[in-house]
Amino acid sequence: MQNRSHRSAAADTRCSIGRAIEVVGDRWSLLILREALQGATRFSDFRERLHVASDVLTQRLGVLVDGGVLDKRPYREAGSRPRMGYHLTPAGRDLTVVLGALQQWGDHYRPHPDGPLVGRGSRVSGRQLRVAFVDDEGREASLDDVDLGVPVAAP
Amino acid sequence: MQNRSHRSAAADTRCSIGRAIEVVGDRWSLLILREALQGATRFSDFRERLHVASDVLTQRLGVLVDGGVLDKRPYREAGSRPRMGYHLTPAGRDLTVVLGALQQWGDHYRPHPDGPLVGRGSRVSGRQLRVAFVDDEGREASLDDVDLGVPVAAP
Repeated sequence: MQNRSHRSAAADTRCSIGRAIEVVGDRWSLLILREALQGATRFSDFRERLHVASDVLTQRLGVLVDGGVLDKRPYREAGSRPRMGYHLTPAGRDLTVVLGALQQWGDHYRPHPDGPLVGRGSRVSGRQLRVAFVDDEGREASLDDVDLGVPVAAP
Repeated sequence: MQNRSHRSAAADTRCSIGRAIEVVGDRWSLLILREALQGATRFSDFRERLHVASDVLTQRLGVLVDGGVLDKRPYREAGSRPRMGYHLTPAGRDLTVVLGALQQWGDHYRPHPDGPLVGRGSRVSGRQLRVAFVDDEGREASLDDVDLGVPVAAP
């Protein structure tokens, strides 16, 4: 994996944030994920949509595959040689929460002068959605009350 | 999400995810934020907790200050020269959602063999919290129903 020299320092072994960042904590990986959530699967799709260099894309796709976020599956189009496609795993789909949180923050704090083109919505109800902290009874918590460092009892 | 007419570089101008990533889309920035949310404010705090090189830390703190996430304020301890402290702005505090989403994903998909030491909880109710998509009536949406690319009507 990339930045192996950073890993011991950047990611505390007992910190889930650090371990998540090992897989998706860089710009290209997050942008690749964004495109994957919009349906991109082919190397050429990612390369063209992101204008990313092939060697960088190859490296980042490898990290995402190794990290269990993307699944590599061969496909073949008529008249072409077999190629590999990259499909989101359940772990990859669950990163929708991370991407949604980034989108929401960007909408609010890095707004485009003309406003956002797209946002978070439900395919079922059609309602707008936001990313929030909720408790086990589905009640939303105020962000001021949230602590990411609450000790967890040993199992 | 994707801006079909300006698909250049990492951050599409109309894409809030891309613009958020410009500020916080790298490993060190996310780790600096994690420490800031846990109370770190001094350069030396960040450097020692993260084992990050001073030049890298200086550069990343600068991006976070320029991006409106951290606010630079001078402080002075007895017998020392004045130094700059780095404090979360409201925009920085709101990134709790992003960090919480990363933590939750790491807990689930990159678990430590001994389980997590800390998690997401409410300082008020003491209840465990999770990061989820909710609608304007506070109803939680299933992740399968979430679309981050719903067109937003022009204002």
